[in-house]
Amino acid sequence: MAQTRIRHRRSKELGFGEKAYGKYTRLIKPDGNFNVKKSGLGFWQSLDIYHELISMKWLGFIGLITLIFFLINLLFAWLYYMAGFEGISGQVFNSPADHFLSSFYFSTQTITTVGFGKLSPESNYVSTLAAIESFIGLLGFALATGLMFARFSRPKKNIVYSETAIISPYKQNNALMFRLANSSKTRMIESEVNVVISYWDAKSDRRIFEPVDLERDKINFLSTTWTIVHPITENSPIYGWTAKNFEECQVEVIVMFKAFDDTYVRQIYDRISYLDEEIQWGRKFVPVYDKMDDGMMHVKLERLGETIEAALN
Amino acid sequence: MAQTRIRHRRSKELGFGEKAYGKYTRLIKPDGNFNVKKSGLGFWQSLDIYHELISMKWLGFIGLITLIFFLINLLFAWLYYMAGFEGISGQVFNSPADHFLSSFYFSTQTITTVGFGKLSPESNYVSTLAAIESFIGLLGFALATGLMFARFSRPKKNIVYSETAIISPYKQNNALMFRLANSSKTRMIESEVNVVISYWDAKSDRRIFEPVDLERDKINFLSTTWTIVHPITENSPIYGWTAKNFEECQVEVIVMFKAFDDTYVRQIYDRISYLDEEIQWGRKFVPVYDKMDDGMMHVKLERLGETIEAALN
Amino acid sequence: MAQTRIRHRRSKELGFGEKAYGKYTRLIKPDGNFNVKKSGLGFWQSLDIYHELISMKWLGFIGLITLIFFLINLLFAWLYYMAGFEGISGQVFNSPADHFLSSFYFSTQTITTVGFGKLSPESNYVSTLAAIESFIGLLGFALATGLMFARFSRPKKNIVYSETAIISPYKQNNALMFRLANSSKTRMIESEVNVVISYWDAKSDRRIFEPVDLERDKINFLSTTWTIVHPITENSPIYGWTAKNFEECQVEVIVMFKAFDDTYVRQIYDRISYLDEEIQWGRKFVPVYDKMDDGMMHVKLERLGETIEAALN
Amino acid sequence: MAQTRIRHRRSKELGFGEKAYGKYTRLIKPDGNFNVKKSGLGFWQSLDIYHELISMKWLGFIGLITLIFFLINLLFAWLYYMAGFEGISGQVFNSPADHFLSSFYFSTQTITTVGFGKLSPESNYVSTLAAIESFIGLLGFALATGLMFARFSRPKKNIVYSETAIISPYKQNNALMFRLANSSKTRMIESEVNVVISYWDAKSDRRIFEPVDLERDKINFLSTTWTIVHPITENSPIYGWTAKNFEECQVEVIVMFKAFDDTYVRQIYDRISYLDEEIQWGRKFVPVYDKMDDGMMHVKLERLGETIEAALN
Repeated sequence: MAQTRIRHRRSKELGFGEKAYGKYTRLIKPDGNFNVKKSGLGFWQSLDIYHELISMKWLGFIGLITLIFFLINLLFAWLYYMAGFEGISGQVFNSPADHFLSSFYFSTQTITTVGFGKLSPESNYVSTLAAIESFIGLLGFALATGLMFARFSRPKKNIVYSETAIISPYKQNNALMFRLANSSKTRMIESEVNVVISYWDAKSDRRIFEPVDLERDKINFLSTTWTIVHPITENSPIYGWTAKNFEECQVEVIVMFKAFDDTYVRQIYDRISYLDEEIQWGRKFVPVYDKMDDGMMHVKLERLGETIEAALN
Repeated sequence: MAQTRIRHRRSKELGFGEKAYGKYTRLIKPDGNFNVKKSGLGFWQSLDIYHELISMKWLGFIGLITLIFFLINLLFAWLYYMAGFEGISGQVFNSPADHFLSSFYFSTQTITTVGFGKLSPESNYVSTLAAIESFIGLLGFALATGLMFARFSRPKKNIVYSETAIISPYKQNNALMFRLANSSKTRMIESEVNVVISYWDAKSDRRIFEPVDLERDKINFLSTTWTIVHPITENSPIYGWTAKNFEECQVEVIVMFKAFDDTYVRQIYDRISYLDEEIQWGRKFVPVYDKMDDGMMHVKLERLGETIEAALN
Repeated sequence: MAQTRIRHRRSKELGFGEKAYGKYTRLIKPDGNFNVKKSGLGFWQSLDIYHELISMKWLGFIGLITLIFFLINLLFAWLYYMAGFEGISGQVFNSPADHFLSSFYFSTQTITTVGFGKLSPESNYVSTLAAIESFIGLLGFALATGLMFARFSRPKKNIVYSETAIISPYKQNNALMFRLANSSKTRMIESEVNVVISYWDAKSDRRIFEPVDLERDKINFLSTTWTIVHPITENSPIYGWTAKNFEECQVEVIVMFKAFDDTYVRQIYDRISYLDEEIQWGRKFVPVYDKMDDGMMHVKLERLGETIEAALN
Repeated sequence: MAQTRIRHRRSKELGFGEKAYGKYTRLIKPDGNFNVKKSGLGFWQSLDIYHELISMKWLGFIGLITLIFFLINLLFAWLYYMAGFEGISGQVFNSPADHFLSSFYFSTQTITTVGFGKLSPESNYVSTLAAIESFIGLLGFALATGLMFARFSRPKKNIVYSETAIISPYKQNNALMFRLANSSKTRMIESEVNVVISYWDAKSDRRIFEPVDLERDKINFLSTTWTIVHPITENSPIYGWTAKNFEECQVEVIVMFKAFDDTYVRQIYDRISYLDEEIQWGRKFVPVYDKMDDGMMHVKLERLGETIEAALN
């Protein structure tokens, strides 16, 4: 009874409800985001532009900026075109299409502040527009610079994980293990791992989230690899469970990683999870270190998820 | 007696005095700022330009920059105009107004460094001024870029709260509850809430600030919603109080929120408060989660403050 | 004996030696820096350019940038001048001085990328130089932008202190007190103060640094003022001391302040110290709060250091 | 036995394996990086461009940017050249080489947005290319600005260490000591040192990593120098060892330093190590402080590693 209450309390530590869901979908998506949908926010609130601009891929980001650049130029080209042929000096009149093209080129030369001057504003209308456009250009590039740096200063999560977790023999019992590695040249300092086992409890008809003990949950620095070990002792919620139990209870092993990144000079957080079908039974990890002739350690990350058979206790 | 001393000590934890005020005005304004007025600072000290520039709305910020841009151009236009018609080559003389307009356009073309060259400096006076203006332009835009990034890197406080707190039945007693939610796509890690109940103590004629116990004051991550519960047990300062007591004692429930924002890679802090008229008695919150066909959680934030009747214990 | 060892140990917590100095000069300068001189570093190491550029006043910073801008233009003007009159088209030849001036203006138009084009590169030598200069201009302004933002993102230390500390009656004993205030609109969260009393110990002929107990050393947020109180009980190193003892022992009260600044989203640290001549005996602080008609608190910072007489216990 | 288990556990705190290596190479390189080689990553993953750009020397960084600038100009020069002589107006035709040079100069004037206008785009092809190039120029400089600031905001590690550690007499026993100093004007707050002694254990044929006790491992601020002392008592893994033992067991003393840098407003971390040949036996450090006439402390960093003989206990 007391035990149940403790588990109940602990399961709230994650900030999730415990409602029962018919079909189970993983809580942590492979990219570390939560598998949750929100509604009830206004359009702008739910848009969250900054988050999008900061977390989208570089290709998309550059593409978006280029598109905006093109559209603003199109708009101003049209405004200059409206001013008539005399608005911009230096054009050679051939056709309205040529006139529009000249307007467009004049716009690009204005917004980038290159201002060759061959095409130059003649009328007050165009001069005023050009002043506004060059001002917008500078503000826009100030904004782009700010965003670029914001993107730069967000630490990449250079953590790679073994594709599967394993159940391995460990001391007198077995243990749930997985392996992670620092894939970058950066130093990850004061690394910390928390593991929560989430499973379906048929009796109470609820999903339980239970933090479990690890053989070691902190290391001073993570320069290469780290094997995380949850010994399946009597205190473990999965003590005595079989692969079949794992499947029936829709087990999801939730992993939370935390470290200080020495390149970005920032705290980083990462999350992944292993579903029951991503857990191998009766395997153990092969070593990733090799002895080199010069005495230096050689870490083979291609072996991070490699396992061999091992009889369970 | 000892009890009083303890409360006395605790009430200082917030950094407020305890002086009695006749009419009570809320301590925490809806925007999270304190309802306090300061005097005795010099003009510049109390101006705190950076704080204003960083925390004003985007519309106002862009407007202010545009205004400054316009005024600087006006100043330089006037300086060029003073130089006489011969100072800038490329003008067509029609009227003094035209001359001033040309000077203004030349100024905008100089400060933005667009420099078309149709209008170009002729005299040494104008050349020197133009050198200074283009230098000011670059420094100004460097400054604007710096400010823009400083604005970007300040985490928005994407926390929404239920409009009212409620007094709900809870276990054998009642509890004071309110609900908050993460309204953004960002992940808030290691979220923490502190609640202080502030009330008027008639006996000692002082305002007391007392931190109260919560059923849970930390969660690993806040991805959706969180119901904060203060169980009104014998240890609570409001044990046995009625709605009338709340009104008489001018209760203000002060809420302090703290989390690590994974988009801005920064610690965030937020504050709100509930006055006695913002507390509903004998209500409970309706669920915000819905089961979806694909097994994913659906959080309906429009229901965040929704309550139904519930008989108190 | 054991007592001495404890004090000995504690005095090292500050990272200072304990050597005796004949004449005492304050350890903490009024600007919060340490009164220490270092030698033995190479020129570049001891220069620490970044620290200077970041911590110098804005006026000096802008002045320095302007000077560098001027000198670089002077250098390039000279290089263009060397190329002869034909190097730059668009000049009117009057005198060598005019030629140099044209070279200088061409340089400013190139480095700021304004490039009017009236003056434009004619020879390959000048074209190449101009390409280099405009590139230097852009890099230089990128650098200036980076520095400006670095300056912006360094929290100002908006803490003001009472000019003097006081010895006041406090409960059954006396107490050493001083007052500090948040002079800005920013919110300082989780503020913390440490006080160390440093004095000359005649017996051991050493300077002792002893951390002392405070009535309160942390507050949740510092929105207005905070009176720091060290009760002079039997545990205090200055228990039973008189003003004369303070003078003989060359007492320096070292204050270390720490908080999280909500505008700069950064941790801030500050230091000041009170020498024995900056401590008033038998005074107490006047209140800084005033009751306003609208119930709002009014903090009068001009009274921060104001004291009235108070008979000591 | 229990002892061994404890050591075993502790040695994992560093995140290293304990495999035996024939020839010993130092674990911590003099620049604070780990002496480890990784394989198994894709080309892009192992490249880690950001880390390189951020941590390379300024000279290399500026050189790289200049090279990229040159190559992009070469590319665009070639594209303009392809457009034929009529593409750019304002050229004087002498030879294909001249034509190429003009194209190159036009490119530099476009990418830096200087746009003198003497050379200006004539055909649509060139106008379009010029629009693209100026846009690339602005984006590129936005990127360079972002990188420059990222470089600026990374704290330099202004810690200098004595070249050797020493074994000195200390109280009734001896102690392992080394000295470090803050070589900058910055204030290092809440400095902390951890020392791990790594040695070869012949019995178990493993390398042991054992954290050892320090006389003091934290100081409030590091403004000058700090002598770190590991007293070699019975609890020390090197109790009773001789210089010969140190050599046979390939001792490496690993030092981890941590502080808050008040100039960069950031946490900093540093590492170094002393191999057995970098440890001197029977020496003690000479004082680095000098008494000055004005009572100010004078720290002579040139004496940081200076030692004199001292008979061991």
